[in-house]
Amino acid sequence: MTTPIEAALKEAQQRARDVRVMIFDVDGVLTDGRLYYGPEGEALKVFHVLDGHGMKLLNSAGIRTAIITGRSSPILDKRAHDLGVAWMRQGQETKGAALIDLCKDLQVSPDECGYMGDDIIDLPVLTRVRFAAAVPAASAFVKQHVHWVAQASGGMGAVREVCNFILAAQGKLDAIQQAFLE
Amino acid sequence: MTTPIEAALKEAQQRARDVRVMIFDVDGVLTDGRLYYGPEGEALKVFHVLDGHGMKLLNSAGIRTAIITGRSSPILDKRAHDLGVAWMRQGQETKGAALIDLCKDLQVSPDECGYMGDDIIDLPVLTRVRFAAAVPAASAFVKQHVHWVAQASGGMGAVREVCNFILAAQGKLDAIQQAFLE
Amino acid sequence: MTTPIEAALKEAQQRARDVRVMIFDVDGVLTDGRLYYGPEGEALKVFHVLDGHGMKLLNSAGIRTAIITGRSSPILDKRAHDLGVAWMRQGQETKGAALIDLCKDLQVSPDECGYMGDDIIDLPVLTRVRFAAAVPAASAFVKQHVHWVAQASGGMGAVREVCNFILAAQGKLDAIQQAFLE
Amino acid sequence: MTTPIEAALKEAQQRARDVRVMIFDVDGVLTDGRLYYGPEGEALKVFHVLDGHGMKLLNSAGIRTAIITGRSSPILDKRAHDLGVAWMRQGQETKGAALIDLCKDLQVSPDECGYMGDDIIDLPVLTRVRFAAAVPAASAFVKQHVHWVAQASGGMGAVREVCNFILAAQGKLDAIQQAFLE
Repeated sequence: MTTPIEAALKEAQQRARDVRVMIFDVDGVLTDGRLYYGPEGEALKVFHVLDGHGMKLLNSAGIRTAIITGRSSPILDKRAHDLGVAWMRQGQETKGAALIDLCKDLQVSPDECGYMGDDIIDLPVLTRVRFAAAVPAASAFVKQHVHWVAQASGGMGAVREVCNFILAAQGKLDAIQQAFLE
Repeated sequence: MTTPIEAALKEAQQRARDVRVMIFDVDGVLTDGRLYYGPEGEALKVFHVLDGHGMKLLNSAGIRTAIITGRSSPILDKRAHDLGVAWMRQGQETKGAALIDLCKDLQVSPDECGYMGDDIIDLPVLTRVRFAAAVPAASAFVKQHVHWVAQASGGMGAVREVCNFILAAQGKLDAIQQAFLE
Repeated sequence: MTTPIEAALKEAQQRARDVRVMIFDVDGVLTDGRLYYGPEGEALKVFHVLDGHGMKLLNSAGIRTAIITGRSSPILDKRAHDLGVAWMRQGQETKGAALIDLCKDLQVSPDECGYMGDDIIDLPVLTRVRFAAAVPAASAFVKQHVHWVAQASGGMGAVREVCNFILAAQGKLDAIQQAFLE
Repeated sequence: MTTPIEAALKEAQQRARDVRVMIFDVDGVLTDGRLYYGPEGEALKVFHVLDGHGMKLLNSAGIRTAIITGRSSPILDKRAHDLGVAWMRQGQETKGAALIDLCKDLQVSPDECGYMGDDIIDLPVLTRVRFAAAVPAASAFVKQHVHWVAQASGGMGAVREVCNFILAAQGKLDAIQQAFLE
C-alpha cells in the first residue's frame, strides 16, 4: 500500500527527473526574504554558501540554472555572475511572461523546467512548470500548487536541498558525493 | 458553543472588517527589532519582502497604510517611499498624539484604524484604534491590550500575516489570490 | 513548601532589589555575539530596540546603567551615547579590575551592582556583584555562578528581560507600565 | 555495558586527545554559511565572539589553529589576524592537497590534526585527519564520515564547542575555567 505522502513524494521525484533547467526566485528563496536597506535602498543581499554549491553541482551535472525575480538589484547581478547562472530576468512583475521568455531563450519547454518560489506572485510560474517547489515559509495557498516543499528555510539551504533532490531523482547524486571520498 | 478563543478571533475579524487605514510601528514590527549600528549610528534597517508585498496588497484593495515610530531614520524614508506608504511620522515619543495627527490628516477616526505594535510605548495607540495587533515577541502586558497576535515574528512576516488577516476579514483575500492562478 | 526553583527565584528577586547600578557585557549580551567583519575589522554591531528601551526604563527609575567589555569599538561608543549609559570601560581583559574601577567612579560597592554576562571571562565580575545574570547561551559552567538566567537570547531581548526583572523586584514595573495606559 | 553512542563519544574523545593542530573551514563553520553580498561581492563575514575565545583558549593550551577554505576574502585575512591563526590557505578547491601542504608547513602529520567542516567539499580532509568534526547543518552523507557533531550551529558557537571538547579530552578545560574564579 502507498500512503498519500509516499505517492506525492514519488510524483515529485518523477517530475524532478525531467528537469533540464532549474529556475529560482530570489527574495525568500535564494535569501531568507530579508531586505537590508541603507539610506539609498537595498545595500546587501544575503545568500548561502550551501545553496551556491548546490547550483554549481546542478550545472556540473548538465542541468542549467536560471533566475526570475520581481525585484531588481546590481547585487544579484554579481552573485549570479559568481554562480554562473545561465539566464536571469529581474524586475518581473508578471512572472508568467518571464517564463515564456526564458523557455524561448534557452530553447526548452516549461515541461523541462523546475521552479522554486515563496509567494503568490510566483504562482503563474509554479502552475506552468513540470516541477514546482516551495520553501517552508510559503503560505498554505502557495503550497497547494507545488509538488514539493523543502525542509530547510529560504536562504538557509532550501536551494541546496532542492538541488540534491533533483540530482537524486535523476540518479546522479551518489556518484557526485562518492567522488569526494576518493 | 463558542470557546473563548473562537469568540476572541471572531471579535478580531469584526474589528479588522472596519479598518480603512492600517498603521505600523517600525522596530520590532516591520523589522525584528535589531538595530544595525556603525560608528555613525544606525547603518542598516532590515525589512522583509513578504511584508512589503502585504502592504501593497492592502493598498491595491483600497486600504491605506501608515507608519508611526518612536525612532527616526533616512533609511525608513527610503523604504516607506518604495512601499507607497500614505503617511509617516517618525521620532514620536508620545504616539497617542501622533495617532490624532494622523487621523486629522487622513480624515479618518481611530475607529477606522488598525495598529500593529510590540512594546509599551505603543499602548496609547493600541488602546485607541478599532483593531489592535501585536507581534509574538510583545510582552504579556502589551498582549493584554490587543485583539490579535501574529504567529510570524516581527520583520519575518508578521506584517504580511496581519495584512492577509484584514483582507480575509473584509472578504477580499480569495479574489486577490485567485487572480494569480489565471 | 518551597521548591528549589522557587527558592532560587526568590533569592534572585531579593538580590535584584538591591541593584543601584546594572552593568552589561556587550558581545553575547547586548548583541547575539555575532561579529560583523569587513576588510578593516568590525563594521557593524547589532543591538536590539527592546533592550535599549529597557535600559532607559532603568535610568528613569533611578538605576544607573554601565558597560564592561573585553573588546573595543567606536560603534559601541555611539550606541552607549544614544542610550545615556553612565559609565563604560572597553578592552578589559581582566574584568574584575574594571568592576573595582567602576565602583570607585560611581561611588557604589559591588553589593549594589548587578551584572549580565555570557562567558568565563565574565566570571570575575559575576562572582563579585550582588546580582549575577546570564543569557541562555552561556555555558553550564558560567550558569553555575549566576543567580538568574534570562529566557530571551542575548541581543534579542535578554537585556530588556533583566531590566523588567529588576524593576519588578523593586516594585517599580507596574507603575511604569500603567503610565502608558493613561 | 557500553551503548553505541557512548562508544562513539569515547572514540571521539580519544581522537581529540591527539590533536596538536585544529583546522577549521570558514563558511558554515566559523560563520553560519550566509554570504553578505554588496554590488562588488562579499561585503561582510559574520563570525562569533564565543568561537574566537575558543580558538584563543586552544592556542593558550598549546594547540595551534589553522584555516582551509574554498573561498577567498580579505575579510577573513583580518579576522584570522585578530585571532592569531597560525596558518591559513584560502581559495582551495581541492582541500586534500591543502591539508598535505599545511602538514608540511607546520611539521605535523594528519594524525595530529583535527578538522571541522560542513559540506562534501570537506570530505577529502575529514577522511584523512585524526579527529573529524561537523556542524549540525552538515548533510547525513557528510556526518557519516566524522567522529563528532556539534550541537551549536556554525557561526553560533559550534567552533567554541569543539574547542571545549578538545580541551576537555586533553584534560585541560577544568584548569582553564577554574582560573577565572580566582
